[in-house]
Amino acid sequence: MDPITDDLRALLRRCSVATLCTQLFKRGFRNTVIQGVRPLAQGPELMVGEAFTLRYIPAREDLDHLGVFNDPAHPQRRAIEAVPPGQVLICDCRGDASAASGGSILLTRLSKRGVAGFVTDGGLRDSPEIAHLKFPVYFGGPAPQLNLARHHAVDMNVPIACGGVAVFPGDVLVGDGEAVIVIPRHLVNEVAPDAAEQEQLEEFVISEVRNGASIVGVYPPKEAALARYQEWRKRGGKN
Amino acid sequence: MDPITDDLRALLRRCSVATLCTQLFKRGFRNTVIQGVRPLAQGPELMVGEAFTLRYIPAREDLDHLGVFNDPAHPQRRAIEAVPPGQVLICDCRGDASAASGGSILLTRLSKRGVAGFVTDGGLRDSPEIAHLKFPVYFGGPAPQLNLARHHAVDMNVPIACGGVAVFPGDVLVGDGEAVIVIPRHLVNEVAPDAAEQEQLEEFVISEVRNGASIVGVYPPKEAALARYQEWRKRGGKN
Amino acid sequence: MDPITDDLRALLRRCSVATLCTQLFKRGFRNTVIQGVRPLAQGPELMVGEAFTLRYIPAREDLDHLGVFNDPAHPQRRAIEAVPPGQVLICDCRGDASAASGGSILLTRLSKRGVAGFVTDGGLRDSPEIAHLKFPVYFGGPAPQLNLARHHAVDMNVPIACGGVAVFPGDVLVGDGEAVIVIPRHLVNEVAPDAAEQEQLEEFVISEVRNGASIVGVYPPKEAALARYQEWRKRGGKN
Amino acid sequence: MDPITDDLRALLRRCSVATLCTQLFKRGFRNTVIQGVRPLAQGPELMVGEAFTLRYIPAREDLDHLGVFNDPAHPQRRAIEAVPPGQVLICDCRGDASAASGGSILLTRLSKRGVAGFVTDGGLRDSPEIAHLKFPVYFGGPAPQLNLARHHAVDMNVPIACGGVAVFPGDVLVGDGEAVIVIPRHLVNEVAPDAAEQEQLEEFVISEVRNGASIVGVYPPKEAALARYQEWRKRGGKN
Amino acid sequence: MDPITDDLRALLRRCSVATLCTQLFKRGFRNTVIQGVRPLAQGPELMVGEAFTLRYIPAREDLDHLGVFNDPAHPQRRAIEAVPPGQVLICDCRGDASAASGGSILLTRLSKRGVAGFVTDGGLRDSPEIAHLKFPVYFGGPAPQLNLARHHAVDMNVPIACGGVAVFPGDVLVGDGEAVIVIPRHLVNEVAPDAAEQEQLEEFVISEVRNGASIVGVYPPKEAALARYQEWRKRGGKN
Amino acid sequence: MDPITDDLRALLRRCSVATLCTQLFKRGFRNTVIQGVRPLAQGPELMVGEAFTLRYIPAREDLDHLGVFNDPAHPQRRAIEAVPPGQVLICDCRGDASAASGGSILLTRLSKRGVAGFVTDGGLRDSPEIAHLKFPVYFGGPAPQLNLARHHAVDMNVPIACGGVAVFPGDVLVGDGEAVIVIPRHLVNEVAPDAAEQEQLEEFVISEVRNGASIVGVYPPKEAALARYQEWRKRGGKN
Repeated sequence: MDPITDDLRALLRRCSVATLCTQLFKRGFRNTVIQGVRPLAQGPELMVGEAFTLRYIPAREDLDHLGVFNDPAHPQRRAIEAVPPGQVLICDCRGDASAASGGSILLTRLSKRGVAGFVTDGGLRDSPEIAHLKFPVYFGGPAPQLNLARHHAVDMNVPIACGGVAVFPGDVLVGDGEAVIVIPRHLVNEVAPDAAEQEQLEEFVISEVRNGASIVGVYPPKEAALARYQEWRKRGGKN
Repeated sequence: MDPITDDLRALLRRCSVATLCTQLFKRGFRNTVIQGVRPLAQGPELMVGEAFTLRYIPAREDLDHLGVFNDPAHPQRRAIEAVPPGQVLICDCRGDASAASGGSILLTRLSKRGVAGFVTDGGLRDSPEIAHLKFPVYFGGPAPQLNLARHHAVDMNVPIACGGVAVFPGDVLVGDGEAVIVIPRHLVNEVAPDAAEQEQLEEFVISEVRNGASIVGVYPPKEAALARYQEWRKRGGKN
Repeated sequence: MDPITDDLRALLRRCSVATLCTQLFKRGFRNTVIQGVRPLAQGPELMVGEAFTLRYIPAREDLDHLGVFNDPAHPQRRAIEAVPPGQVLICDCRGDASAASGGSILLTRLSKRGVAGFVTDGGLRDSPEIAHLKFPVYFGGPAPQLNLARHHAVDMNVPIACGGVAVFPGDVLVGDGEAVIVIPRHLVNEVAPDAAEQEQLEEFVISEVRNGASIVGVYPPKEAALARYQEWRKRGGKN
Repeated sequence: MDPITDDLRALLRRCSVATLCTQLFKRGFRNTVIQGVRPLAQGPELMVGEAFTLRYIPAREDLDHLGVFNDPAHPQRRAIEAVPPGQVLICDCRGDASAASGGSILLTRLSKRGVAGFVTDGGLRDSPEIAHLKFPVYFGGPAPQLNLARHHAVDMNVPIACGGVAVFPGDVLVGDGEAVIVIPRHLVNEVAPDAAEQEQLEEFVISEVRNGASIVGVYPPKEAALARYQEWRKRGGKN
Repeated sequence: MDPITDDLRALLRRCSVATLCTQLFKRGFRNTVIQGVRPLAQGPELMVGEAFTLRYIPAREDLDHLGVFNDPAHPQRRAIEAVPPGQVLICDCRGDASAASGGSILLTRLSKRGVAGFVTDGGLRDSPEIAHLKFPVYFGGPAPQLNLARHHAVDMNVPIACGGVAVFPGDVLVGDGEAVIVIPRHLVNEVAPDAAEQEQLEEFVISEVRNGASIVGVYPPKEAALARYQEWRKRGGKN
Repeated sequence: MDPITDDLRALLRRCSVATLCTQLFKRGFRNTVIQGVRPLAQGPELMVGEAFTLRYIPAREDLDHLGVFNDPAHPQRRAIEAVPPGQVLICDCRGDASAASGGSILLTRLSKRGVAGFVTDGGLRDSPEIAHLKFPVYFGGPAPQLNLARHHAVDMNVPIACGGVAVFPGDVLVGDGEAVIVIPRHLVNEVAPDAAEQEQLEEFVISEVRNGASIVGVYPPKEAALARYQEWRKRGGKN
């Protein structure tokens, strides 16, 4: 699978997750937003990248002790160095945020490596420090407890569940100040331009509403509003 | 039902939801605060207004497609233009915040129309934009998914449940930085002055406690403290 | 039981809850972080203090009316004046945050009395005001409803549950910007120095990672990294 | 809306809810089974009937006292006498089964009136007695607490939510030993025969599997199995 | 506190929990039925007895190991031998039924000792065996995990929470095939006769409904029905 | 990995899940019982067998349509024919029992193939029919909705989560009338005989308790009781 292009990334960065959601809903997808996960830190731009997955199952006392991290092949540690720059590391913690799936050291390393972001439906420890990274991080909540207490890292780059949504390696993840959406890889090339177009139309609509327009005939726009929209576009998006 | 008076609004704006809660508790009401709902945006003053209700039931795939918004009679869109200025639009989404019950366009329109606020126990999309409106908004959480994916708008101005509380059209809703309370309409004229009085007494109590007083004899105030309170009121609420 | 020493307090204040968690995990404790509780207000330093407990059971209509606060022996009011300076008042509200276990007057009083902090797995009313106190407060969420509506204060200084964790009077509570941990009293003297040492090592690790190091061989540190760490310590913790 | 015919009832009684579910899934409906509701009592046949709805909102202390039942216009009591024979009374209790939405007297009355069944996502009191009625009853759980403690009956024959599913008056409800499904009224005439056909095919498949067949080529059936199925039908469904 | 009399026990045994619930609701009590707890075993009669309480807090790994049962002063084991015959042992497990609060040996011992019943909002192990005891047992669910894994027995005969309800030692517990109710001790002498009277009236009402009467004028009974009721009573409760 | 021996199976069949739980607890394992799963059907003996796993992630509308079952390589269908006789098919449905992970046809096939049992933390359709199979089945609840509506079968024989417990292929599953336990494979040879021994001791203890013994000195047994136990064993387990 080829990496997504810079043009596609740029296009997606102009779209909110809400708008992408509408485009997927139109195509019959009703379960696309990762549930129970919120932004902890933000980068300078929207998070956009292909999914690189890490899967956890429940911890077992004999397998999950502090000694495991001495093994460089431990899947969690391996994933941190294996996720390619530009991709997003996304973890399946079965929605259990009572223990961490990472902390400030691992998240700092990801940000230094040029990774596009981090998503977990588990917890994160050192969350106040992570909040200061200029790096997109989405999580289930603060959890000082270490992952070994609840989570056993088992494999990477397999299809996973995250926050109730199916995530296949290579799916495109977009995260804004609200949430993260999973775009099935084969749809991203058609969804992105439609979403960008919708963004522009909604920008026009909101400018009309700010100027006092009723939503009737404007949202969604009927003929007259669509004509004004075309004018507005010609004027470069100015009222 | 006559609209509530400006005097009553002013009186209620001097009261916290906590204080109004105590007044309703005194009168035998134990379930008055909308649960699972928090402030997203705040106006320049506390939110005060009569309830104008909108009811959703679960979505059904054949009824809830994007085409429905072309119908100006769609209950959600109709409610946005129908709620009278000074009232609060409040939605029953069955506490399901996994999909939106509105977004920045609709909320902007409400704020432009002079509506007093918006409350939903469902989600809201475009929540980062809505947070910048100078308009009281209370919600169940950010949800980029559009309402059609989970919620079917069915009727308006009927009694509803919101966050586990009964809301009848015309009930008075007050929202502060903490929560929203539902005051049964027939009680608001007696609850408001009692709550305002309680606010003043508690302001006195906290000033004493800030000055080092024990709570014994002061909270609740016994005779000596009540005498000091009368002095304090005469001094215009200064220690 | 003697109070904990100032040296021990100072040592604990240099440790995050996450680090203390690791130290207790090492010793076989997997359930040490209070769940469902988050910071509302912060003092100038981390919260450190011995647990002074207050236990609630569900309210009963005939027992829990506003008149009870006229009795200075009411356990909630008594606890406010009884918790010794330097200790933390911690409440068992059975994880029910739909009603308050305190408000701004009681919390102000605690802060004036030199108490070390307040923790509840119930709610708090007047939460926007409490957020401005320079006093460590951890809670289950904003709840304008008064405690009498759900909670009956029953006794103090007995072992309790708080957020799913056992808390014995005298256990040491540490709270940072993320969470509160319960350190069994008999372990605090060995846990504190080990945690402080771990903090320093992790500070070194993160400085290396910020400089571009891979986590391999560094986190956890192998021989070479440990040698660099010793150098770093000699240099006073500077790269 | 005409009542459903006896032929249609007979056809639906030959179908399990699971099979009807598959037929609706085929047509794009994924949310058709009432959640959190289980059988309490069974009639001599599967429950089949049109939905007659009753809606509850949360109780309010001043409105919901024992005196209300003296009013024959109370919606709950009115619904009991108003639901036509052959229809199913279905209640929206917001999924709160901590209080009843009926008891043995009301359920006995429904069974005497020739009503087709009763469904609630709330509780039922006197559940051990109701279990002995020869009458289809589905409920959220036993709840001796009376409805007034949590539920305020507000209106009937409006669209409702029940167990997370939209129910419009006149929709066809089918209940078996497992669950209740809501069939949108306009689809019932096409869904019923397809489901009855599917039942027959699955009866054939299970007879083959009982005889030792692998599921490969049999479930779903490929050409050879379909040929055997045609033979089996000719033989009157015997192996 | 004197034990309850045999007459009172006999009176209460003629009442369902639902009826007792109505009587307490009438007196302003809305939270009287233990939630999340169901019958596992039944004795020959309804369970009636005074509450003898046992309180658990969360387990701690160093305190809750198998060795503790060697100590005859362990609160769980002590409670088994201490609860007086005729009383009910009721446990506060914080509603956590993922571990047991007893098993077949302890429950058998209770039944041999003449204890009136056992109630827990935690789990029970050996539940299939316990189901065969002729002894009233109510529980949160089957849980083979031993109590030490989650629950630390801490004290007995203190006020507790069980299934969301306050239970004071000496309160009267009544359990039928549906649920367990907590009757505040000071009310039992007035509640019992009123409930027994209500039972008789409802027996009459249901007999009329079985004979085809409408509920209008009968439930609740108006003048004519009340007259028939008086006749019915004279006839010794026969139609 | 060699299959477990018939001797080991026989030994495990003499042990309840509760007893096996105690043995694992003794060895430091606190999370061994599958949560949220209950028996639906029982075979002639306790379920004992090695885990053969099937993993589901959330469904996606474009991937999970009825056509997929035409593909014999579909993981769910493949697993049904692939699980070796004597092993248990266990499914990870993320604890979501709102849709099925099988129905009567597939379960009948498993029972015909000599498979040892079936466990899912999802739902099952046709549950009333399955309840009549003489085959051990454990499930999260009845769910007529087909798996495609919520679950996407993704791979088999990988480590999974089931009901909050880690399950590795080859782990030994034991199920009785109460629950299912997961015994890590490397421990089963030591756990089984110890559990069988414990069963015998507890049989003795319960016989003493049935004869009126106090639990003091008997449970756990002190010297005198242990002596009687040795006698009892010599007598072949008779009092």
